[in-house]
Amino acid sequence: MSEKIFPLNREELLSVIAKYPTPFHLYDEGTIKNNLRALQEAFSWAPEFREYFAVKATPNPRILSLLAANGAGADCSSLPELLLSKAGGITGEKIMLTSNDTPADEFQQAIALGAIINLDDISHIDYLEQHAGLPKCLSFRYNPGNLIEGNDIIGKPTEAKYGLTRDQIFDAYRIAKEKGVRRFGLHTMVVSNELRTEAFVYTAKLMFNLAKELKEALDIDFEFVNLGGGIGIPYRPEEKPVDLSAVGAGIKEAFGAIMVPAGLSRTAVATESGRAITGSAGWLVATCLHEKKTYKDYIGLDACMANLMRPALYGAYHHITVVGKENALADHIYDVTGSLCENNDKFAIDRKLPKIDIGDVVVIHDTGAHGHAMGFNYNGKLRSAELLRREDGTIELIRRAETTDDYFATLRFAGASVAI
Amino acid sequence: MSEKIFPLNREELLSVIAKYPTPFHLYDEGTIKNNLRALQEAFSWAPEFREYFAVKATPNPRILSLLAANGAGADCSSLPELLLSKAGGITGEKIMLTSNDTPADEFQQAIALGAIINLDDISHIDYLEQHAGLPKCLSFRYNPGNLIEGNDIIGKPTEAKYGLTRDQIFDAYRIAKEKGVRRFGLHTMVVSNELRTEAFVYTAKLMFNLAKELKEALDIDFEFVNLGGGIGIPYRPEEKPVDLSAVGAGIKEAFGAIMVPAGLSRTAVATESGRAITGSAGWLVATCLHEKKTYKDYIGLDACMANLMRPALYGAYHHITVVGKENALADHIYDVTGSLCENNDKFAIDRKLPKIDIGDVVVIHDTGAHGHAMGFNYNGKLRSAELLRREDGTIELIRRAETTDDYFATLRFAGASVAI
Repeated sequence: MSEKIFPLNREELLSVIAKYPTPFHLYDEGTIKNNLRALQEAFSWAPEFREYFAVKATPNPRILSLLAANGAGADCSSLPELLLSKAGGITGEKIMLTSNDTPADEFQQAIALGAIINLDDISHIDYLEQHAGLPKCLSFRYNPGNLIEGNDIIGKPTEAKYGLTRDQIFDAYRIAKEKGVRRFGLHTMVVSNELRTEAFVYTAKLMFNLAKELKEALDIDFEFVNLGGGIGIPYRPEEKPVDLSAVGAGIKEAFGAIMVPAGLSRTAVATESGRAITGSAGWLVATCLHEKKTYKDYIGLDACMANLMRPALYGAYHHITVVGKENALADHIYDVTGSLCENNDKFAIDRKLPKIDIGDVVVIHDTGAHGHAMGFNYNGKLRSAELLRREDGTIELIRRAETTDDYFATLRFAGASVAI
Repeated sequence: MSEKIFPLNREELLSVIAKYPTPFHLYDEGTIKNNLRALQEAFSWAPEFREYFAVKATPNPRILSLLAANGAGADCSSLPELLLSKAGGITGEKIMLTSNDTPADEFQQAIALGAIINLDDISHIDYLEQHAGLPKCLSFRYNPGNLIEGNDIIGKPTEAKYGLTRDQIFDAYRIAKEKGVRRFGLHTMVVSNELRTEAFVYTAKLMFNLAKELKEALDIDFEFVNLGGGIGIPYRPEEKPVDLSAVGAGIKEAFGAIMVPAGLSRTAVATESGRAITGSAGWLVATCLHEKKTYKDYIGLDACMANLMRPALYGAYHHITVVGKENALADHIYDVTGSLCENNDKFAIDRKLPKIDIGDVVVIHDTGAHGHAMGFNYNGKLRSAELLRREDGTIELIRRAETTDDYFATLRFAGASVAI
């Protein structure tokens, strides 16, 4: 069982709402630091451990700067994400660029920032060299094909657009070495939102064995093996969190059995977790605007799928609590909806909850990763503010709410620009 | 068979790309006008026909202004959409507000603009009166429950959050009449992207009968019956377009059989089409950046699901042509991908296409509705420009491409605002 916490009591939350109207995303500094620390501790046995935070999950420089202060780097996969990292104070080899179908300007920015570049395809060696030059430290993304099952979110590796095949990866390091690259890393990313210990250990063994074979075949060393992200979180209260110490211990054993005898005992272990760091450290706070009773009972919030897309996109479960009614009997069944003109704009379907009254404040849990980040402006919906609860209990506005001026910013039509 | 056209020849397109780099959305004024005219002609028998264009489909004031000049109004369902309509020169009762879970400020803006308000729930009568006052002309959205099947996109009416039940709708008009409202409309919206004539005729009969019964029961007249939108387009070349004249003729017959004898011969017929007007009049133009051969052959474009979400979200088919290779043999099988760090960022899977070379320009068809509109910034991806090809052949920039400055606009963190 995972306990669903929220860092503010009712009075504290209402005073925040008085200043920043709902809906908003709230993040908790302490929880973010604890989540990062738990990951770092699980890998404290490694010669060096590097967490490149998946910027995609929570693309806010204030969050990135907080993570950087606690030892994390940044996993970027677009030019704006590189700029976010820079804005958050993360530069040089604390950045790892892992993108696919990469445009030239993105490689150029990564090289300018001194980032580690992780190539997705063998053809990108020439493309990178031609458009941006080769970096000091180069890595390749391995796609293990049918050696790994994958899962519903990330898909089967053989159907995935990412990475190099086994044959290609041997060629790729050979070519890079011939072109003068001397420092190497190895990368994969094959699961998403995974909770099973054995999935991570299996991936690590596969990658350690590959590193060993590459070293033997090509006489190259590896500065790091990046095992990717994919550490899930228990969205449902009945789910158990990933046993990070078991994951760490299993991977330690594999490291000892494979990497050490292969002469790779000094290779760093890296991850690129997003969800595991910020997922459980963020909440979407909304207010009940309407109750509607037709063929079902609907609770209408002032938030919508523009604020949180996962339920509409994946049918994902997000736990919901009603502020002040945390211990009340869940004896009502509701569809909890947003106002978007899409019928799948529902945060919960047939959810057992306490009786909700208009004006009640509702907390949607585990929205810290891939929450605000995935928001769109469909139907003219504006994206909400982001707040950070600092460890001293103060609240910091780390992103303001979007306005109609923002929404109109790219409309150059003269009629539009004068008539608002 | 629907023929897939594109309004520019290769030389014209390359000269546009020289000024506006890909990716961009291109709309064609002539096609938009033709689509609107076809709909108007199908209903030219009606005492009055009103098309309220679904702003959600193509939320650009320039497009709205073009539609307004050709007789259309606007179907809005959010405050920014009301402002877009105003910016496009559409005000007063040329606007119909059809939203759900509506916040007070949206009702207030609609009242300020003199819009027709279409209520989604019986409880909204009091809410509207309390927060904005009642409008001159009021309408209610009917949810026919299990009288209509619905379809995959809009869902079964009994599972849909929209509209009032049959019992409620009688109460709603009675209450509105008691509160002094004298002008009424009636509305439903039960299908989406539907191609079958009979679906539209069935809905019309249902609504005309309901109008008749409401008139008899409550002694109220109806200024209009709004049959909603949902007119689909043939995304696949083998699909046939909706036979609009058959739809119009079928609905005319029902109008004659039901509305005329009921004393409702002067009631206007309204629709709120989006896709039927702009869907086939828009194209996403992109360039091939990379080819990648692993377990499959991948073509990587400079566009991604931030520009067009429908394939990733719904598995929707969009036809693809390669500029200059329109008549070449489709003897290659590709996954056509974007660069988003999501494996479902694919415009086509296992698509037969001519051999594509790096640098080839690719046209993705039928993206004029729910294309740019649904774009998000996930993974730091920036939304593209929108261009309009005017009837005189000139190209007008009607939305500029997003920049990283736009992307950073809501980040108030001092570090972010200075360090870009």
